[in-house]
Amino acid sequence: MILASTNPHKLAEVRAILNLPIELAPADLPEVVEDATSFTGNALIKARAACQATGEIALADDSGLCVDVLGGAPGIFSARWAGVHGDDEGNLRLLLTQLADMKPENRGASFRCVAVACFPDGSEIVAEGRLPGSLATAPRGEGGFGYDPIFVPAGSKLTIAEMSAEHKNEISHRGAAFRELAKRLRRRKH
Amino acid sequence: MILASTNPHKLAEVRAILNLPIELAPADLPEVVEDATSFTGNALIKARAACQATGEIALADDSGLCVDVLGGAPGIFSARWAGVHGDDEGNLRLLLTQLADMKPENRGASFRCVAVACFPDGSEIVAEGRLPGSLATAPRGEGGFGYDPIFVPAGSKLTIAEMSAEHKNEISHRGAAFRELAKRLRRRKH
Repeated sequence: MILASTNPHKLAEVRAILNLPIELAPADLPEVVEDATSFTGNALIKARAACQATGEIALADDSGLCVDVLGGAPGIFSARWAGVHGDDEGNLRLLLTQLADMKPENRGASFRCVAVACFPDGSEIVAEGRLPGSLATAPRGEGGFGYDPIFVPAGSKLTIAEMSAEHKNEISHRGAAFRELAKRLRRRKH
Repeated sequence: MILASTNPHKLAEVRAILNLPIELAPADLPEVVEDATSFTGNALIKARAACQATGEIALADDSGLCVDVLGGAPGIFSARWAGVHGDDEGNLRLLLTQLADMKPENRGASFRCVAVACFPDGSEIVAEGRLPGSLATAPRGEGGFGYDPIFVPAGSKLTIAEMSAEHKNEISHRGAAFRELAKRLRRRKH
């Protein structure tokens, strides 16, 4: 079983959650364009390509921050919101500026993740995880990455960046999606 | 009757459409924060404040570009999408970058405008106009402003910025909203 990702951090996280033998996909996989219009679509693009190229069961995920008053954006565009892929600080700063006039009750948002598995026989599993919350008006905390410093989970007063990595993994959208995927992988006979 | 706007261009446009005597609101009106979460909400904030301050019938509008794959964003944030209010070129460039991977069939969008009238007796009229279309991958044309150079109305091959001002006014979301408002203003006895 392989993970269609080039990110070793993600592999460690997914391994811990799945408790199943899994490896990073080979680095020489053909590159794909993630041009779908949903998390599910993009995750399937990655996993299908890896499965077809290797003949292995391939897992992949896609995730992002969905802001209510932006109709779910940044969503699939979360990692490149300010224009440059992976510019965490630029993305976060732009989002705060866009929402500067929004009152606390209009700052609702959720982190979402879709994790998928594609099998050589063409069958697929899709699992979703979600963490509801709201956006702070300024970044707080040193942990995590991406939008973690401005995301306050529902029922918490801390941003994700102010929580321990363990606590984050317990409640995170990615954790929830991969735990659901793991449950369904174990149920499946193959 | 007054228009709650500081923009003389908008006054001329609205005058031509309404064919009713209308003036710009006095410049010393108390400033308002447009912190609603919809075009209608923001238009009403402006018109209500102008009506209350002057005792006159007050008109106002709010409008923006709604991109399907962004769940309707930029929407109410259209004029400050890149972070600085009114930075037309920055806004347009950011949006093109965000959507760079989107195929033509996933670039659907619409211009929307809500025009409202608030009366001293507390009654209100809300009218909406909409121009469906899609987004080009690069700006074209010298006319118009805002997102006009990348917006191609449905059934057209030209961007709005490649059309004459007359043609734009004929099909525009703002034209449609104010024509609808005018119809309902004329129907109303006051």
